[in-house]
Amino acid sequence: MNQSDVDGAWVNAHRLPLAKRARLAQVDAGGTGSWSKDAAEARTDSNIDAMRDLQYRLFVEGSQSLLIVLQAADAAGKDGTIRKVLGKMNPQGCRVYGFKQPSTLEARHDFLWRIHACVPGAGEVVIFNRSHYEDVLVVRVEQLVPKEVWQRRYEHINAFERLLNDRGTRIVKFYLHISQEEQLKRFQERLQDPAKHWKLSEGDYDSRERWPAYERAFDDALTLCNAEHAPWYIVPANKKWYRDLVVSEVVRQTLEQMNPRLPQTTVDIDKINALLERELAELKAAKVSPE
Amino acid sequence: MNQSDVDGAWVNAHRLPLAKRARLAQVDAGGTGSWSKDAAEARTDSNIDAMRDLQYRLFVEGSQSLLIVLQAADAAGKDGTIRKVLGKMNPQGCRVYGFKQPSTLEARHDFLWRIHACVPGAGEVVIFNRSHYEDVLVVRVEQLVPKEVWQRRYEHINAFERLLNDRGTRIVKFYLHISQEEQLKRFQERLQDPAKHWKLSEGDYDSRERWPAYERAFDDALTLCNAEHAPWYIVPANKKWYRDLVVSEVVRQTLEQMNPRLPQTTVDIDKINALLERELAELKAAKVSPE
Repeated sequence: MNQSDVDGAWVNAHRLPLAKRARLAQVDAGGTGSWSKDAAEARTDSNIDAMRDLQYRLFVEGSQSLLIVLQAADAAGKDGTIRKVLGKMNPQGCRVYGFKQPSTLEARHDFLWRIHACVPGAGEVVIFNRSHYEDVLVVRVEQLVPKEVWQRRYEHINAFERLLNDRGTRIVKFYLHISQEEQLKRFQERLQDPAKHWKLSEGDYDSRERWPAYERAFDDALTLCNAEHAPWYIVPANKKWYRDLVVSEVVRQTLEQMNPRLPQTTVDIDKINALLERELAELKAAKVSPE
Repeated sequence: MNQSDVDGAWVNAHRLPLAKRARLAQVDAGGTGSWSKDAAEARTDSNIDAMRDLQYRLFVEGSQSLLIVLQAADAAGKDGTIRKVLGKMNPQGCRVYGFKQPSTLEARHDFLWRIHACVPGAGEVVIFNRSHYEDVLVVRVEQLVPKEVWQRRYEHINAFERLLNDRGTRIVKFYLHISQEEQLKRFQERLQDPAKHWKLSEGDYDSRERWPAYERAFDDALTLCNAEHAPWYIVPANKKWYRDLVVSEVVRQTLEQMNPRLPQTTVDIDKINALLERELAELKAAKVSPE
């Protein structure tokens, strides 16, 4: 670890440049930069502490908000990232929403309807475990709607994210990037653990065929919906400790840039102090000589 | 700590019996039972671990749910209890809602409208930081509605909690009990900490007058809305470590009684394993000799 690691500039290498097309097939999912595991874990811990403090300030400030989007293939570590990093923020003011197959009611609305209902209010942090991007990913690859429909959604997503940003919401989006081999290995690990058997379904394992189609769909989603106020980070995620480092670093830096401030008190501290002293004295007097 | 501490039966002493009237003025807010601080903290840690495991099972099981209600005077430790105990559960499947003064929209509905929108769905745990009980507490003491209105609310609350329970929601309600002297001391501590000054408002400090009125309102709320499926616990909370112990113990035991179970897998593990082995082999072969 050198000085540029500590100051955090290294993390920007993982941000998808605005003018550039994403090509996930060419990104090393096993990358760990110049980091050792120990140094990364120590920095992650310090990032989490900083996140907790900044989130408290954001909550109290009560004007800006932060939306964190997690997207990835199965077994890429969305749940783990939430459990070990993002979920360490105070649940007062930090919520997680998971988006699965739409309910009957949800399916009767436009695809952003259920998403909009869950965005963070002023002072809040919200984490999306999967998101509106599924509507241009699984929906596209599995051909759940015609091409004319999903094609128009990139534009809808961009307009929606601009709307949120105009009201004070910063958006950061993470693609957790694992290799196909790593995915298969993690599926095998799940097979070893009876407590995870409920997660298994036979249909999930014909990934060999669908992998390239998903990669194309991700490349498009990341490329077409990438903005200064809502950037994508492509996070090498074969190594969980590096994934946790990158995610925590980005969230920390984003919150630092937002720079939430505790409001100044408008009350007279001395006056309150005098009042409290008097009340305490009265309380003690009442105890000594009850009427 | 003796055996009865470990098996957890001691905690029931803090449960308000169904047939009994609450008399908070007679409950020792400084009580710590037979617990030492060290033993309590160790037990709290183990309770939190158990809660995390049980919550995971509840989430996966996806049929029952748990609603935890926190009520207390200012500075009694609601936020701290959430930060240090309840908030340690996985935020996927565990949400916190704080209820402050109703918004304009909320105020145009019955008092349970905004509450109902936040109750846990199947598999979820929800924590209310303040709740519908404010509508028979602050609303009553500050005379925000006529007596005829708040008087009828106890019945509405009971019907509402029965409705939730009929759909599979267990409810546990905590009154965090601090003495008036302890409250004044904590207010003074806040004055010492500039990071907490934003919490201060001069109007909060004329508690001397209102304390007895609040105590009566709490006595009524606890007494009139206490049920087997939605019991009240009166938690001595002058000592934060004892408060954390009691809350974690009750939540742990409640979840244990609910006994959530991981679903049995319906898939053929051997078949999936063979498929994964084949895919991994193909992937390796493709790497060795690319077409």
